Parts: sequence; C-alpha cells; structure tokens
Amino acid sequence: MKGNNLRIKDIGEFALIERLVEVLGPAGRGAGQGVIRGIGDDAAVLQNNPGTRLLASCDMLVEGIHFDLSYFTPRQLGWKALVANLSDIAAMGGRPRWALVSLGLKPEMKVSFVEEIYAGIAELAGKFGVTIVGGDTCSSPERLVIDICILGEAYRAEVAYRSGAHEGDLILVTGKLGAAAAGLAYLREGGKAAIDGAEELRQAHLKPVPRVKEAAILIHSGMVGAMNDISDGLASELHEIVQASGCGARIWTERLPISQATALMAAHTGVNPLDWALYGGEDYELLLTISGEKGSPLKARKLGRTLAKATGTPLNFIGRILPLSGTVEMVRPDGEIEPLLPEGYNHFKE
Amino acid sequence: MKGNNLRIKDIGEFALIERLVEVLGPAGRGAGQGVIRGIGDDAAVLQNNPGTRLLASCDMLVEGIHFDLSYFTPRQLGWKALVANLSDIAAMGGRPRWALVSLGLKPEMKVSFVEEIYAGIAELAGKFGVTIVGGDTCSSPERLVIDICILGEAYRAEVAYRSGAHEGDLILVTGKLGAAAAGLAYLREGGKAAIDGAEELRQAHLKPVPRVKEAAILIHSGMVGAMNDISDGLASELHEIVQASGCGARIWTERLPISQATALMAAHTGVNPLDWALYGGEDYELLLTISGEKGSPLKARKLGRTLAKATGTPLNFIGRILPLSGTVEMVRPDGEIEPLLPEGYNHFKE
Repeated sequence: MKGNNLRIKDIGEFALIERLVEVLGPAGRGAGQGVIRGIGDDAAVLQNNPGTRLLASCDMLVEGIHFDLSYFTPRQLGWKALVANLSDIAAMGGRPRWALVSLGLKPEMKVSFVEEIYAGIAELAGKFGVTIVGGDTCSSPERLVIDICILGEAYRAEVAYRSGAHEGDLILVTGKLGAAAAGLAYLREGGKAAIDGAEELRQAHLKPVPRVKEAAILIHSGMVGAMNDISDGLASELHEIVQASGCGARIWTERLPISQATALMAAHTGVNPLDWALYGGEDYELLLTISGEKGSPLKARKLGRTLAKATGTPLNFIGRILPLSGTVEMVRPDGEIEPLLPEGYNHFKE
Repeated sequence: MKGNNLRIKDIGEFALIERLVEVLGPAGRGAGQGVIRGIGDDAAVLQNNPGTRLLASCDMLVEGIHFDLSYFTPRQLGWKALVANLSDIAAMGGRPRWALVSLGLKPEMKVSFVEEIYAGIAELAGKFGVTIVGGDTCSSPERLVIDICILGEAYRAEVAYRSGAHEGDLILVTGKLGAAAAGLAYLREGGKAAIDGAEELRQAHLKPVPRVKEAAILIHSGMVGAMNDISDGLASELHEIVQASGCGARIWTERLPISQATALMAAHTGVNPLDWALYGGEDYELLLTISGEKGSPLKARKLGRTLAKATGTPLNFIGRILPLSGTVEMVRPDGEIEPLLPEGYNHFKE
C-alpha cells in the first residue's frame, strides 16, 4: 500500500474512508448480495430475502481490554473483530449478510495500520459472503475502539433461540474447548513455550473461524433445540440456555473436548485445563441441544459424522438437560456431582 | 432509582444490563413493533414489513471529542446519541425502527449515570416508535464511548438517495441553520451570555429533534429528488449531494434561514453567523432538492405550508442545482459569486 508513513491526521476522515472502501474491494460492494446502496449515503439500503427474519447484533472491542496490539497484527485484529459477530449470527441459525464497522482511532495512527485492520475484516467477510455496508470513523485519543454491528437473516422456522431447550435434550458442543484461553496464556507468556501444537493455540486466539457453516448444517438437520455460541465460556453460556429455557443441565467433565495442545499448555502454566474449557472465553464454538427422545444418542452420532465430513469439525455429546430449573451440575470422573457456577468473563468486575 | 452511589464495577456487566433493560421499559420490548426477540439472545430477531428496503447506519460518539460532560447531562447525552441515527434514517426517506446501543464505560462510573443515558435514549426512541433491540457494554477506562446502530425501513419507491438531484432542481432546507453551532458557542462560554433566545440555542445543541416526521411528509409528497441530513454543515452536505448526483449547485446566502438568536450569539462571539450556517455541524435539518420544472417554486411554497402546518417546521428555498459537475457556488447579497468549499467538521484533521 502506498504512503506507508502517512498518519490519519495527515489525510483526515474523508480521505481515510475512501482508502478503506478501496481496501474492502468486493467485500464493500456486495454485488448480488442484497446491497442496493452500501457505503456512501446517510444509511445503507438493503434487501433481505422474503420469508426471512432479520438478525442483528453488535460487539465492541477496546484496546487493552479485549486485545493487545503487542501480539495482534492489525490484520488479525480486523479478522477477530468480526468473528464474534459472525458467531452470534451462526448461533441464531442464521446467515450473516451485512456489517457496519465503527472505528475510534488515534489521530497519529498510520493510515496503513487502519487499512490492514480493514483488510482483515474484508478477508473474513469475503469468506462468508458478508458485505461491509457502512460504519463510522472518529477520534479516540487513548485506545483503538472497534464496534461492529452485524445483520443476518434466517428462515422463520430455523431461528435457534437459547430458550429452545427441553428436559431430556442432549447437550452438544462443536470443536474443542479452552483452546482460545490456552492461546492467550501462550501469547501472554511471550509465545515461546515449547508446546506441541502451539500454533493451533495461537490461531485459536488470534484467528478463530466462526462456526457459520457448522451452524447451517446443524440447523438444517431440524434437530436443534437451543443454541448459543461460546464467547464467554461454556459455564456462562450453558447457564444462559438453562435460564432462558426454564430448565437445568448436567454435564460430564470427562466428555468435554479438550485438545492435547491445550492440556500441554495448561500443564506448562500450572492451570487445570478444565478451567479453560469451562470458563475461558472466545472459543466461538457452538453449544446446542437436540431432542432427547429414544434413539437420539444414535442420531447425535450420525449428525456428528455428517458435520465432521462436511466441515472437519467434531461434535461432542457432553451432557443432558434436566428438569430442575436454573441448576447446572457437573459430574466429575469419580462420579461426584458439583454445581457449575456461571463464571466467565464479566466486564467491569474486578 | 435505587442505589444512587453504586458503581458499575460493583455490580458487573450482567447486572448492569438487567438494570438498563428495566430503564428502557416499553422502548426495550417493542410489542407489535416487529420485534420477535429483542435484548437477551445472541442476536435480535426482527421482522420488517414486506415490500420495504432495510436501512442501516451507525454513529459513534467519544467523550471529549463529540460531547463534553461539563454541559451535557447523561439524559441529554442519551437523547443526542440517538439523534444522528434517527436523522440519517429520516434523510433516506425512511422510518426508524430498531437500534443497537454499544457503550464503552468507565468501571468507576455510577450505575445511575448509565441508567440516565439509557433513559435519554428511551425518551427519544419512544417518541419515534424505535425499539432498542440489542447492544454491548464494555470497559473503556478513559472515555465514555457510545456507538448506536440504527435500522429502519422505507418503501422501495420512497428511498431518497443523495444521488437524486437533477439540473434545475430547487434546493430546500428545513428549519434554521447554525443554531447548534451557536448553542455550542454559548455553552462553551459558560452558558451565561445575555442573549435573547439563548434557551433555543442550548436546546439546538443539547436536545435537537430529528426531522423524522418532516422527512415522511416531504417524501410522501413525491417531489423529493436528493435528500441529506445536515450533520456536518450545509456546505459539506451540499457537496455530497452534488458529487453523488454528478451536478453542481448555487445557493443564495441571503436565503439561508438563520434565527435571530443565532445572529445575536454570533455578534456576541464576533463570528459571522453565515459561517455557522454553512459550516457548523449538528443542525440535523434536512437538505433536499425538488424537481425544478415550471411552477415548482409555487409547489415548493405549497409543500412548505403543508409541512409548517403539520409540524411547525419551516421549509426554505435556498438555491438551485446547476449542470456544472462538482461546482458549488454561493451568491452574496451584492451579487458576487464565490465558490463554496466543502468545509465542515472533519475528524482527525488538525
């Protein structure tokens, strides 16, 4: 990119926006993606598919709180900023379509740095057919702030609410748990620990892939009851499902899918890997329930095979929905039952 | 409100969100407003009206850049944070429907302060039938950040693009210009200047009313070509219309509607009131063009009377669209013609 030493304050807001639109390329035009008018008017003008519900969610990231520029490249940061949004739409059973990106920027930042953030956003957006249709840029002197609003759509019968769990349902989870927390520990330590699979952990924290394709396959099976994405840790997300559905849940800790690399990093750090799996945030896996009628474990295994074949992502049966309202229990390998508290990342709490 | 000395860090994110939802009341539930599921799942689930286009826009405000807490109460701030959004939807010829509110908050802030921001948002949202359907809260240690994403809808034939101006069109503007800038000057001076109409200026800066009703009346007349809201000053907005439409424009400075209070405050401050009218931002009036065919000045006057009767808001004819691409001129009272440059608020530029 030209003018590598240009600062934002040298070119101002309007020239910056022009350059960012250029960086977006096709991800900013959205030909054939229901974009009647994208960036460049008072508001974007969009056309959603008839018969669909509109899905909307937003997610704000603040430098030093959600990310650390000492180990995120701006391109990774752009990618990651959009992940939580796509994951939210996936968790509703929907298809992400359009995003609006608000940036609070330090005036002395390099233009090329912001362009790289946008390149990361465009990379992930392009992967899932999402068009950036608007946004805002303004000055934020101390910290970089990124707030992305995502719009998606889902057919009415396919929306997966977190209130859709019923007594007896099986509880399933995609992928592996705790890897993002293990990756964060690895990066915070300087990224030098000699751990087998360290790259997998780094990627889990820096460049997770939202489970958009997996969610579509799961939803189309017609078996999904409740679904959440795991952004704040399994314990917290399971409590949300249980509260919204008016039921309880029991999980077996030995069933939780934890990768070898996560286990190794946990041993290296002196942490119980279960804590990362239960309370570590940002895994962006899907937590879902499917009907617990007769033969359903068999159906769950079949669904798992279908999912793995299509996407490479495993699906694991980790627990059951109980009738007892609000109670979440975990069963230890020795059979001991303990309450699982809704801990996880909570902003503001010290 | 209870617990007036509670700090955000005392109660954490989840309890804060619960309290904010309570503050929103009906503005957070949206019964009958196309809200299938509002706050409380991974994404809001919405139903727009068949045959409409979806409109989406967002606007980020940063403490010390866009607003100063020394003269904004938190309730006024909440109101104002939503104004720019509603104004954007109005300027597209649309009806604002749903909003998502992202807040970057200082952990030591009082909970009651954030509740008041939300009360201000709810007040304005309620006035225009807007439901708050989602958002995010996170920690922003130095500065309060508010980013609101607005969703609206408009019937396909009624969307007003800024590219809709044609040679010969009349240029019209609602309300008065420069009052928000005059109000800012008044507040910055300490709010003590003995100016007739000072309260009008204060309100213009602190609690402007977006021209949602006015836009609907104008759009339904079928006469609107291009439309923009004046957030960055008339000069900048007119340049946007002219650029998008591939034409030029001429305005007569003596036709610009400037209130007596603005003129008085300008004299008091030693500023040319025309500068506030042309380059002062945040007036949130509408700038529009209507077809310039024979008899159109008469039609414009009739439209103005209809608008004033229904809303009390004046409509003024201030200029004409010219064929010369990209050129914007202003005619001084003595007949002298000068280029009008696209100045206005530009973030980052020093």
